[in-house]
Parts: sequence; C-alpha cells; structure tokens
Amino acid sequence: MIDLRSDTVTTPDEAMREAAATATVGDDVYGEDPTVNELEARAAEAVGKEAALYVPSGTMGNQIAARVHTDRGQEVLADRKSHVVKYELGGLAQHADLQVRMLETDRGVPTPEQVADEYVPADLHRPGTGLLCLENTHNARGGLAIAPETVAAAAAAARERDVPVHLDGARVFNAATALDVPVTEITDPVDSVMFCLSKGLGAPVGSMLAGGDDFIERARRTRKLFGGGMRQAGIVAGPALEALENVDGLETDHENACLLAEGIAAVEGFDVQVPETNIVLADVSGTGLEPAAVLELLRDRDVLATPFGPTTIRFCTHRDIGREDVDRALERLEEAFA
Amino acid sequence: MIDLRSDTVTTPDEAMREAAATATVGDDVYGEDPTVNELEARAAEAVGKEAALYVPSGTMGNQIAARVHTDRGQEVLADRKSHVVKYELGGLAQHADLQVRMLETDRGVPTPEQVADEYVPADLHRPGTGLLCLENTHNARGGLAIAPETVAAAAAAARERDVPVHLDGARVFNAATALDVPVTEITDPVDSVMFCLSKGLGAPVGSMLAGGDDFIERARRTRKLFGGGMRQAGIVAGPALEALENVDGLETDHENACLLAEGIAAVEGFDVQVPETNIVLADVSGTGLEPAAVLELLRDRDVLATPFGPTTIRFCTHRDIGREDVDRALERLEEAFA
Amino acid sequence: MIDLRSDTVTTPDEAMREAAATATVGDDVYGEDPTVNELEARAAEAVGKEAALYVPSGTMGNQIAARVHTDRGQEVLADRKSHVVKYELGGLAQHADLQVRMLETDRGVPTPEQVADEYVPADLHRPGTGLLCLENTHNARGGLAIAPETVAAAAAAARERDVPVHLDGARVFNAATALDVPVTEITDPVDSVMFCLSKGLGAPVGSMLAGGDDFIERARRTRKLFGGGMRQAGIVAGPALEALENVDGLETDHENACLLAEGIAAVEGFDVQVPETNIVLADVSGTGLEPAAVLELLRDRDVLATPFGPTTIRFCTHRDIGREDVDRALERLEEAFA
Amino acid sequence: MIDLRSDTVTTPDEAMREAAATATVGDDVYGEDPTVNELEARAAEAVGKEAALYVPSGTMGNQIAARVHTDRGQEVLADRKSHVVKYELGGLAQHADLQVRMLETDRGVPTPEQVADEYVPADLHRPGTGLLCLENTHNARGGLAIAPETVAAAAAAARERDVPVHLDGARVFNAATALDVPVTEITDPVDSVMFCLSKGLGAPVGSMLAGGDDFIERARRTRKLFGGGMRQAGIVAGPALEALENVDGLETDHENACLLAEGIAAVEGFDVQVPETNIVLADVSGTGLEPAAVLELLRDRDVLATPFGPTTIRFCTHRDIGREDVDRALERLEEAFA
Repeated sequence: MIDLRSDTVTTPDEAMREAAATATVGDDVYGEDPTVNELEARAAEAVGKEAALYVPSGTMGNQIAARVHTDRGQEVLADRKSHVVKYELGGLAQHADLQVRMLETDRGVPTPEQVADEYVPADLHRPGTGLLCLENTHNARGGLAIAPETVAAAAAAARERDVPVHLDGARVFNAATALDVPVTEITDPVDSVMFCLSKGLGAPVGSMLAGGDDFIERARRTRKLFGGGMRQAGIVAGPALEALENVDGLETDHENACLLAEGIAAVEGFDVQVPETNIVLADVSGTGLEPAAVLELLRDRDVLATPFGPTTIRFCTHRDIGREDVDRALERLEEAFA
Repeated sequence: MIDLRSDTVTTPDEAMREAAATATVGDDVYGEDPTVNELEARAAEAVGKEAALYVPSGTMGNQIAARVHTDRGQEVLADRKSHVVKYELGGLAQHADLQVRMLETDRGVPTPEQVADEYVPADLHRPGTGLLCLENTHNARGGLAIAPETVAAAAAAARERDVPVHLDGARVFNAATALDVPVTEITDPVDSVMFCLSKGLGAPVGSMLAGGDDFIERARRTRKLFGGGMRQAGIVAGPALEALENVDGLETDHENACLLAEGIAAVEGFDVQVPETNIVLADVSGTGLEPAAVLELLRDRDVLATPFGPTTIRFCTHRDIGREDVDRALERLEEAFA
Repeated sequence: MIDLRSDTVTTPDEAMREAAATATVGDDVYGEDPTVNELEARAAEAVGKEAALYVPSGTMGNQIAARVHTDRGQEVLADRKSHVVKYELGGLAQHADLQVRMLETDRGVPTPEQVADEYVPADLHRPGTGLLCLENTHNARGGLAIAPETVAAAAAAARERDVPVHLDGARVFNAATALDVPVTEITDPVDSVMFCLSKGLGAPVGSMLAGGDDFIERARRTRKLFGGGMRQAGIVAGPALEALENVDGLETDHENACLLAEGIAAVEGFDVQVPETNIVLADVSGTGLEPAAVLELLRDRDVLATPFGPTTIRFCTHRDIGREDVDRALERLEEAFA
Repeated sequence: MIDLRSDTVTTPDEAMREAAATATVGDDVYGEDPTVNELEARAAEAVGKEAALYVPSGTMGNQIAARVHTDRGQEVLADRKSHVVKYELGGLAQHADLQVRMLETDRGVPTPEQVADEYVPADLHRPGTGLLCLENTHNARGGLAIAPETVAAAAAAARERDVPVHLDGARVFNAATALDVPVTEITDPVDSVMFCLSKGLGAPVGSMLAGGDDFIERARRTRKLFGGGMRQAGIVAGPALEALENVDGLETDHENACLLAEGIAAVEGFDVQVPETNIVLADVSGTGLEPAAVLELLRDRDVLATPFGPTTIRFCTHRDIGREDVDRALERLEEAFA
C-alpha cells in the first residue's frame, strides 16, 4: 500500500519507539511528567512563545484556544474553508458559543481590509468580533504556504482592534520550510499557535498549543474541561520530542509532492494545482469519473488518496513515502488511466 | 419630529388602544387567554400554517424556530446579511449551538445551486446542515421583496435534503403587498415563519411564530425556556389583532418610500437604491460626510433616519408617516444639503 | 369559578385598562418609551437599587441575572426547591452553562454555615462558586416569608467570598407585607432582585429586574439576546405602574389565605401548613385520594387549585378573590368531602 | 518518596514499555490502529458490552457518555459527592446543558425510592430526567465498593422510567475485586460504563467507554468534537492492553490499604474510615492541625498524600507501592506525630 491519504498516517520510527520505551514519566495532571514538561518548554521555544501545552489533537488545541481567547457570544473571523470551520463539528459554536463570520479569501487569509470590513464592534444587537483565526499551511486550499507578511498584515489589522489572533498551524513547519523562513517569522505576529506533532513530523500522538503564560494557564484548565489531561503522557511526549527533530525532513516531502504533481498532471483528465508544500490537489472531472470512482481504481492498485470535495482528490506526501513510492504511485495511476 | 428610523416606532392607534382597554384576558401560560388564542388562530390562518405562537419579539421567534428545528451542533445556511446573523447577538450559536454557513447571495436568498453546494451531510468531522433560514423582505439589503418562486426554489433544494426551512418574515406582508401575491404563496414552501406585528402593522408589542402543530407545541415549551411566557397577554394581543387588519395600509408606506427615494435621489451626493417596499437605502459618500454627520444635520431639522453601514443610511416609511411628512422631510433634506 | 390556582391569574382592573389605553409610548428598544422608563425608575427606587429593567416574565429576569453575574461553568448555590431550579427548564445550565449545587435547607434559605461549606473555590478540577440565588417568599415551600436577617446572613456569607447574590423576589412584596418591614430591608443585602408585577400586584404582563447600573446595562443587552425587547411596551408598563400601587392590598390576600387555611384544616383528611403569605399548601393523603382526584372534585364544584407534588395541592389567594369567595370555596370543599 | 496521593501516579512497567515500543499501529481516526481496535474489543468484552471506545481520560469518557445519552436541558441524577459533579469543572452543564439533581445518598448510590422521588417527567416547566449517573468504587466517599444489587436496584428504578444509566467505573475493577464478583455483575445493569486504565491498572494513558454499538458510534463522533481522537494511539493502547492483565494485582493494593489504615488508626489524632478498596480516608482534626499542615509534615519525611476536604486527607495504594512502602510510610507517620 502506498498511503497518500494524509500525513497523519505516519508511523513512529525506531527513535520514537525507543523514546516511548525509555521516557522518564510522571503524572502530567499534577504537572510532574518531566518528558511532557521538556516537550512543552521546547515547543514554546520553537515557535517563540512563553509557554505551551500538550494536547491529544489539533482539534482540541484549536478549540481550547478559541474558548480561552473569547467571551461567549462573540464572532470569529475565519476563512470559510478553514479546518476549524469545516472539520471540527461546529465546535466553535458548541464549545464556546461563537458565531463564525466565514470569509471568502484568496489564499485562506483575509486581507487587512477584509478584517477591517468584517470587524464588528459589540453593541446592543451585534455580538462583537472576538477572534481572528488563521491557518498556515492552508489544508483545504491545497497546502498553501502563507507568507509571513500576509499573516502579519491580517494579524495587525485584528490586533489594532483589540482582537486576538490564533493560528491553526497544524502544518506551520511545512509553511516555514516551503518559504525558507524561521517559523517564528510566521508565529510572532499571532497570540497563539497550535501545531501538530502527529502529521508530517511523524509523532504518534499529539499537538501543541503555544502562547503567553496566562493564556496557557487558562488553556490548561480548559484542557481538563475537555478531558484532555493525560497521566504518564511522557510515553507519547517522548516520541513527540523526537518528532520535533524532524522539521528538516519536510523539505523532502515537498519535493516528493512536486514530483507527484508533475506526474499526475501528465495523465489525461487530471487537473493538478501546483503544490506549495506536501499536499497535492487534483481535479478529476476530466476523467469523467467521480472522485470516489477514481479513488477505487487507485485502491485496486494499492494507492490510497482521499476525496476532497465534489470533483477533487487529495494526495499527501509524508515521512513514510519515499521517492520510489512516488514513482510507483505514478506508474499505477498511469496504468489505471491510460 | 419626522421619525423615519424604523417601522418599529409606530404607535398604537385608537382602535388598538380600545382593544387593549377591553380585551377579554386570561392566563396565557395556562393557555387560557381567549384574545391570545384568537390571535394565534388568526395568525396561523393568515400565513397558512396549522398553528402559531405569540412571542414578545421577532428575535425570540427566530431563535425559538432555529432551536426547535435543529440538533445542537448542526449548520444553518443563511445569507450573510440576514437579521438572524447580524442583529441577534450571535443567538444561533448561543441558544442552539449552531454554526452559521454565511452565504454571499444576490438578493438575500441563495439559489438552489448554492443550497446544494453548501449543504453538508453529517459525518465524523462535519456538523451537517440542519436548517435553511430565509428572510423576506430582506432588511439589510434594502427591504427587497423576494418573489415566491425564489423562496420556493431555495426551500425545495433544502427540503430535498431533509433540511427544514424557516422564514424570517418580520416584514413578509410588505413582501406580499409589493409583489401583489397572497402571503401564503411566500409562506407555503417553508416549514415555519415568523412575522412581526409591531413593525409596519403597527401593534405595540409582539411577533408570531407559525408552523406545524408539533413544531408549535415544542416552540411553546422553548418560549418558556426563553422566559417569553406572558400572563394576561390579551392586553397586547388585542391591539395585535387590530394590527392584523392593517395589511392593506402597507401599500401606502411603499408609495411613500418611492416618493421619498425619488426626492432624495434628486439631492446631490445621495445615491439611492430604488425601494421595493418601505425601506430606502441611501449611500451618502457623495456628500463627503460620514453617515453620522448626515444624520446629525437631519436631526437638527427634526428628521430621523438610521445609520446602516460605513457609507449608508436607512429611511423607513410606516403608518405614522403621511405623504405630507415625506414632503417635509424632503424639504429639510434639500435645505440641509443645498 | 373560584380560581385559587395562582396569583398569576389576576386580571387587570379598570385603572390598569385605562392606563393601557392612555399610556404615552415610544420604542423601548431605543429606550424611548417614557412609561417604561418611569416604571423602571420607580421599580428601582421601590427596591432600593440603582436601576431596573422591565422583562416579559420572572423566568427571564432570573435567567438574565444568573447569566450576567457569572462566568460560564461556575456553580450556583440554590435551595433544591427553588423556582429557578425546579420550574425554569434547567435554564441555568442551558443559558449560562452553570452547575447548580442544590441545597437542602430549612426554610428555603441556606444558613451562613451552609454557604461556607458549599462554597467551592475555582481550581483545576472544580468550577468555583459564582452565584448565590435566594427566593422570598419561597413558593415551593408554601409561600414562606423569609426574615431580612436570614436573607442578610446568607448574602453576607456569599459576599465575603466575592460571590454575588440574586434574589428571586417574584413575591417579595408579599414577604415584606407579611413581615411588616420595608421591602428594602430584604433587598438591601442582595446584588440584584427580580420581582413580578403580574402576580399578586395584578399587572397583566411583566416583571422587573433591579440592580446596579452596570449590572442593568449588561442585563439590557442580555434581554435582547433572549428576545425580551418589546417595542411600545408602555401599553403594558402603564398597567404595571398601576400595579406598583397595589402593595397594600397584599395584606388582604394574606388574611384570606389564613381564613382559607383554617377552613380547610377543619375538613377531615386535609393537613394544612399554616400560611405565612398568600399560599396555602394542603397535604391530601388523609383523604385517601390522589391530588388529581381531589382537584377534580373541586373543579366539579367550580373551585380551582393546583397540584403540588405527590400528596399536596396548593391554593393561592389574590386580588380577584374576596372574602366571600373564600367562604364559598370552603363551603364547596366541605360539601365535596363531607 | 512514597507517593500515596493517587493510583494515577503509577508508572508503566517493563511489559508496558515493551508494548509501547513494539505495538502495531495505524491511524485510529481512520479506525485503522489494530492495537486500539484490539483494546476496544477486549475492553468491551471485559465489561460485557457490545463495543468500547478508547479516550484520553476518564473525564472525557464520562462527559461523552452524558452528552450522548441525553437531550440538552435534561436533568441528571447523581450523588452530590460524585466525581462527575465535583471534579469535572461543571462539564455536565458546559458540554451538555444538563442540570444535575445532586442527591444526598448513603454510600454514593441512590436507593430506588430516591430515584423514584427525584425523577422528574418533562413538562412545560420542568426539564425532565435524562440520566442516572452512578460511581463505583465511590472515590469521594472513600473508595466504597458498591454491591451489584445496589447498582442494579438503582439502575432498574431508572430504566423503568426510560432513564438510561451511566456508570463512572473509573475503579470498577477495584469494586469487583473487593466484592469478589465478576465485574459484569456490576456493569450488566447499566447502559454504559467508563473505566480507567491509568489508575490502579497502571497504564500510562487512557480510559475506556463501553456500551451498545449505537451508543459507541455516537460516542466516537462526540470524541472528535471534544478533540479526543488520537492518531497512532497504539503506542499507548499497547501498554493499556497490558494493563488489562493487572486486575488480579488490585487485591494486593486493597490489602496494603488495610494495613495502612490500621497503622494510621493507631496514631493519635487520626480517625480512619475502614477502607473497602485502595483508598484510605483519615480525619485529622484530632491532631489539631489542618490537612495542609499534616501533609507538609509527611512530605518532609518523603510521604505524599492528598488533601480531601476541610478535615480529611486521602491515601491511595497502588501497583508502585509495596508492603515495605506501607511499613515505611507508617514509621514516618508515627515519627512525625509521636
């Protein structure tokens, strides 16, 4: 099987398994797991924030952030295709009573003008804007790597209006790698950032939520409310520490994505968006088939990808996919659609 | 003062005051106020539904409807400028844990294609669409009267997908009057409709929520949760019954709005949207003044209107505004901006 | 019919109807209804608070108060038989995400020791106490009139711990009358108080929420969220102003309740709690009948009362019940159970 | 350090670490982690339910269960000292809009009569009872092992009224061990049960929620909403599978708790509740010291316990505490309080 469905499928390598087997642990609900504490310190440092919190998933990190930043009943500005809007079961409304003002944006990030236009001051009838939520790379738009200036401009427009900014940086290290900038150039302008260890970095479990000391203290309590407190979490935080070392490897994933995209583009019926990171979107309308049918033909040939809207499928490269896997995947694709 | 801020400012006439003074009353929380019961029966009949419920405000009617139609965590499809989205304090999220999918529409109502495209089936990550909410006339877009076919087409697209449809018909009788159709042509395709008695119809207090028997039974319980149960409500339901007789008068309001719009358009610096009902929107950027400054100049001359976005002001005609008031308002406007 | 079900069934008298017919009105959502403004000013003064807000029902007043005083997720201390706990559809959880710590109390009000014991400081696992909610008179315990010292002691214990205190004073004027104290002796120690105009005072519609200026400002916005904003509310606020004059008449209701209680106690099978205000609870187990059967026998003789638990029925005296109605009700009761 | 604060502090043994290092893994959000799947199957079987779900914490398991079993706004019957009420940040209100009817019970479980008395049918004013939540062993009452008949009687009273029953069985294997019954005798009468792997059984991370197939399917979606979906969760599910083998060892913990209790009881000033499982509660008022001061004296001698109310401290035995640790802890206690 060549599994190109998602970078979440990456399995832990030997170093990570060794770390799981040997991590010094304690009860993290008491704040006593040294491995978790080390992970939180290193994660905070990596993205240039005062503190960080280990959470079981990116969804929990995003939802905790939204809840801690806001008062109930406020509005959140977010791209209409952002993960927090599309794939988190309406959590912003369910967990934090927030109304999302879904924005139509170019590359997933609103312009400062959009932020200014869509900002709503609280009054007797209007809820008031309480949060700007960005995403980088932007998954549903094809793994777009958003430039630091773009993030900074949107964030500045929000912060001028006393609106805090959260970054869903599930794949923010992919963005930094693709843009060849330190990740802190992307994270400096935002108040909080969530990033995933269990995607391209390869950790088995977990994500980090980073921000100011006060923010993280409140986030820790909210994590308890969500049931996200784990005990000897060092067993998974150990591998996660190893995963933090894997940032350099993301470049290979991006190269593989480019190769894959070029190869797919050469097949008739596939209209491919040029990848910026490790995500390749292909519009398959030209094949005359529905995405599900295309995926079935591929699955029959041991290649897995994922449906992504009415005419599109998504391929995702990652640590467990080598150059030769890309080549084989392309061979089979050509075979299926020759 | 010529008060053109809103048709909510209408004061009860003699017949209504007489009705308040003489209404037979009982305890409506026990269902024993005969005047309320009569109002609910007549309101249901007026919009062609099985049953209706008297509520203190249109906001409460809309919010109860959304809550009764949905399960927590679902999505609502609504125009991004609709009242339920803009002016109800994020109630859909706060009261019913709903995520609004804000739609960019032409005249406030999505096309069937938009409904199809934006419809989301529930799955492991996505909340699922639970309600389509329409508005007619459409306030924030300038009192647009939406044709029955347009309402019906959107509603049909929703109902095909088992998505119920609620109509915010705060001014639905204005729509029917402007389009010269029975109001039931507009309300037949929707599951529930709220309409206001305290706007153009002139009642002092209250709105009606109408729908199927089961729906209204559940709405009655939800009204209690919201604290909307009133006791000898016949005192205001009596005037409201009188207000139901005032539908014919809406035509005069629309004629006055046309006169007003023409007059304003003749003043330099005012860019006026042709009114379809009793709402006149004027873009005042051409005056070189902010809306607030324009409104102040008018207020100095005893004319009141309302700010409506960064460059726009709204005038609203109603029962307490006669032809001569329109003339005087225009004179003063010309005087101020000559 | 002699309707002893509740003092909510009182119908407006001539003065109230005249007030409805002649009230000067305006749009209260704009804060421009002079009659509402006068009512709010006089209500605030009556209970010794800075400001007050007119709401459609006591339930809405209580729920708004709880929401404004607290942060989501806190705990409320309340007697387990209080109205806010038993009869408001779980609104504290639904509207404000509050957990009620239901207290077993003697006369409906916790002792200072209970407040101290049940108070929970916020920590990583515990929500923290955010509100003490009292009720006076206490409906479900039989209209008990709670002494000012008792209210003050509980309130002081809460406020020492920075916990605000709300009083559900739906019938607080009954309490003051029964105890022969100025009502402000009862309301001074609490942060906010709700009282009903539509119960013993006889207004057709409405209740007042009173408290500090800031509190009422936030309450006004929350009223909008609940859909409790009404337009020309002077039509019902006028009668409500008349109702404020009816405090003296409550004494008659209490005398009638005593007569009624004595008369019922004389009938075999009825075990009557000595009334302190206008509510008479009778345990009917001695009749060998269920409450529903007892009520049916009474209804057959044109006397209405209300079921109140597995073995109890409640009678309530009010402005529309004269001494002769009490006598007749007793005759029929004796007739039915002779 | 002799850490008697909680059985959550247990650290994974060699077998568990080996399991972490070697577990076959996959992406559990796709349902493809074979180790998680095996764990879920075995956990379901262990407690006699159709299906089970792996969750990061017991709190999440309880909260998901409450939400899936109920409609918003219902009431939950629960002992006032139960974990779900005291230590989950008011989650029942926050996550599921539920009002808790806190019960005063003898040993943490209501009698059938209490369930009957406190059951509330839904009507226009009352929310209606939607869940009975039990706890066994009962932590805050001192690790009481509740007999199967007691659980069954309460559950039967609920189910007769169509009220589902959830068991917080964080330490249900301790209960079964202490009572010497198959755990299914305790779990058969309830609809769902949560049990912790990370307490006495010693797993590093996680708890199981078990119930019917439909229930678990809905729970899986709700876990996503809470952000509880983990990726290669086999890394912790592997150790958790090992932990399932540790049930027999709980007996030793109970024996150690007995020894500990006897020893403490012999020290002047300590009033000890006879332990039924692995929890020992000691009232320290007799020492003339606050719990915090007692704990400090112990900590100075490398013994850790936990404060547990205004006069009580809690000791908890577990896998990492041997007979000799108990002896040493007692020596130091005697030393400190001689």
